[in-house]
Amino acid sequence: MSNAFRIDTTRRKARLGRLLTPHAEIETPVFMPVGTQATVKAIPQDTLEELGAQIILGNTYHLYLRPGVETVRRMGGLHEFMSWRRAILTDSGGFQVFSLNELRKVNEEGVTFRSHLDGSSHFFSPESAMEAQIWLGADIIMAFDECTEFPADRARARASMQMTARWAARSKKYFEEHKHEVLWSAPSQIPTLAAKSAARMGHPDHVGTAALGCPAEQSSAAAPASSRSPGQPGAAVTTQTIAAPQSEQTQSLFGIVQGGMDRELRKESAERTIEIGFPAYAIGGLSVGEPRELTREIVESTLEHLPSDKPRYLMGVGTPEEIVEYASLGVDMMDCVLPTRAARHGLLFTSEGKVSIKQARYAQDPAPLDPNCGCRVCQRYSRAYLRHLYASNEVLAQLLNTVHNLSFYLDTMRRVRHSISLGEESRFLSGLWSRPKP
Amino acid sequence: MSNAFRIDTTRRKARLGRLLTPHAEIETPVFMPVGTQATVKAIPQDTLEELGAQIILGNTYHLYLRPGVETVRRMGGLHEFMSWRRAILTDSGGFQVFSLNELRKVNEEGVTFRSHLDGSSHFFSPESAMEAQIWLGADIIMAFDECTEFPADRARARASMQMTARWAARSKKYFEEHKHEVLWSAPSQIPTLAAKSAARMGHPDHVGTAALGCPAEQSSAAAPASSRSPGQPGAAVTTQTIAAPQSEQTQSLFGIVQGGMDRELRKESAERTIEIGFPAYAIGGLSVGEPRELTREIVESTLEHLPSDKPRYLMGVGTPEEIVEYASLGVDMMDCVLPTRAARHGLLFTSEGKVSIKQARYAQDPAPLDPNCGCRVCQRYSRAYLRHLYASNEVLAQLLNTVHNLSFYLDTMRRVRHSISLGEESRFLSGLWSRPKP
Repeated sequence: MSNAFRIDTTRRKARLGRLLTPHAEIETPVFMPVGTQATVKAIPQDTLEELGAQIILGNTYHLYLRPGVETVRRMGGLHEFMSWRRAILTDSGGFQVFSLNELRKVNEEGVTFRSHLDGSSHFFSPESAMEAQIWLGADIIMAFDECTEFPADRARARASMQMTARWAARSKKYFEEHKHEVLWSAPSQIPTLAAKSAARMGHPDHVGTAALGCPAEQSSAAAPASSRSPGQPGAAVTTQTIAAPQSEQTQSLFGIVQGGMDRELRKESAERTIEIGFPAYAIGGLSVGEPRELTREIVESTLEHLPSDKPRYLMGVGTPEEIVEYASLGVDMMDCVLPTRAARHGLLFTSEGKVSIKQARYAQDPAPLDPNCGCRVCQRYSRAYLRHLYASNEVLAQLLNTVHNLSFYLDTMRRVRHSISLGEESRFLSGLWSRPKP
Repeated sequence: MSNAFRIDTTRRKARLGRLLTPHAEIETPVFMPVGTQATVKAIPQDTLEELGAQIILGNTYHLYLRPGVETVRRMGGLHEFMSWRRAILTDSGGFQVFSLNELRKVNEEGVTFRSHLDGSSHFFSPESAMEAQIWLGADIIMAFDECTEFPADRARARASMQMTARWAARSKKYFEEHKHEVLWSAPSQIPTLAAKSAARMGHPDHVGTAALGCPAEQSSAAAPASSRSPGQPGAAVTTQTIAAPQSEQTQSLFGIVQGGMDRELRKESAERTIEIGFPAYAIGGLSVGEPRELTREIVESTLEHLPSDKPRYLMGVGTPEEIVEYASLGVDMMDCVLPTRAARHGLLFTSEGKVSIKQARYAQDPAPLDPNCGCRVCQRYSRAYLRHLYASNEVLAQLLNTVHNLSFYLDTMRRVRHSISLGEESRFLSGLWSRPKP
């Protein structure tokens, strides 16, 4: 068991949990910043750590093309290559490949596609997508699925969902046969969880541990074991609230539910995916152009068919209100490019609404971007300065804007967790954040 | 006296000194990173502090056009606008205006030029350049000069040098009449030097203080005075090794020596500028396309005509070897866009030579960029990762590359200072740094 999941508290449908991965213990619900090309755009890794990112995403399609999975493996795997010591999740490449539209051909075997970089021809199958992800070496990897386009008629959505199910079985089969090939599968390869946990306890972004039954003393006591290695005498594994894996560690493969915008097909997809059997289930194929109400409806109905004791990952959403809402529905993991991409376009999320920093109204505004935000950008710089950097096409604008937006998202999720832990009704569903600031 | 200068040690022609400005005490020889548009490109201000930058440059021409000196003044001046608490130097705009070539017309009164941003017409005179710099509010400002083009015949170089001298007199006259208009001229406007000094003493980039007779205890004892303001009872100014200004503070205006590549004209320019009288002298008009040998020759001969008790600022140079060499000739201050600009083009200075990180040879190189460098980039990332970021056009490449190059420059200058303080022959003139890494 490489990725253990435990639910500590529930509040209506919302769950507060802990997901133990080989590189980090993750508090859920969690928001995962997207690091497409082995970098969360514009942000150094130490800043990501400071922001409290527990797990980030990498995109298999992009990394496969550049620098190539062989290069990443030779450099010690994705964690080592990008010097990120916490958890990583890679997607299967399916979503990116399906975004290529004219550049791909799908058949039962897999997908032939052309590189967006140089037009070269490539082929992804469930097996090769698993191989690529095992080589990259993320903590969590995803089954190879077909992301059904929107709109799609029922026959098309059904056929696509069925292929996803067949590909899920092939993904699992390949993974089970090859999962020990991940570079760090030997226990000595990874810094021990005890050391990690000790480090984590001292981190300012850690909220509500006492209430969650993970006393600091226990983790501190475990710290001396940090140098243990297999043959080392006296290197006993110390007891923790969540036991550290004591045998060979591997990645976890998550299944993905598809089925378009059809509740029945989603139910069938969930059942078939559960039948194959995965340690966690993702909901894919949403945020592909459908109205937001429909997204919510499909999420809510699909969640009913997923096992309550397994992590649920909603892929590719959403605005700050949406991630709060989905957490309240019982989603445990989410990712989205919105905070980072919007930041690069000068669109900033604040407690007072969405700010377009390029607007002339901010040119002489000495106030911090968000007076209620404690991030290093809001603590140091004015709206006038941020507006100047953006208007002057300065690289620093991208960095500072991204730091703030990620801080806003990660802080939002911390508050959600805190609110679940206190058994409080969420105070964060105001619906104001994504509206323009008045 | 707003900018006091003291020479602590000399080694042949090289000098180790301290320049006291209203916002910071600067150890010289000093390298000043260039922050053209109120940002050292790609680098957040806290990272600049961590790198040990004591003083940075702003460009009056760029800030005048965008966001405008009125905006900067309304936002509290350049320090406040960009949230930079250490020292700033602004150039007069002369060099940038003269770089516009076809877009300018010069007469005795000043220069008419067109904005490179929108083609709009503007006029800079010695008086308006001083006004702009007083409004920006840097610690050190520069006389408005004409940067003589290269090559130029003797008549042209002489006429240009003479105009620079007349403009220097006008610059000084305007400055003396208006220097009290700087926003922070009242003593209470600036955090006290005692507080700054206390903060500085705790900074890891501080080298050789004990040898320089500035004991930490004294600074610490002075810290409680940090909240003093004019009418506050009991807010006595405490004694420090270098006394804090006790009266109204102003900017310092530096004079600039021109004269093209002619030693005689340089001598005459130095004499005329000294006759006008400035607290420090800059050597301008070099690094404009002339051979490096000629630059050195002109620098060396010009320095002979500058007073030894005043700071000497060589504008717009150079490579790592050059800044070491000029420091050994007795230059106290230097600035250059080279470390930041080269970084953005993937050219990195290391103790083993210059690295072009885009080269395929680094694609699978797990070593740090410079094994002898302690910067946060070399401590965390591999050449393979830096190469991937650069090849993938990732913004993080610009940030990490710039952090390393600035670290290399600032560290080089720290070593120069340390070596002067120990009375050692500089070990840093190997001439290897700017050659390609073998």
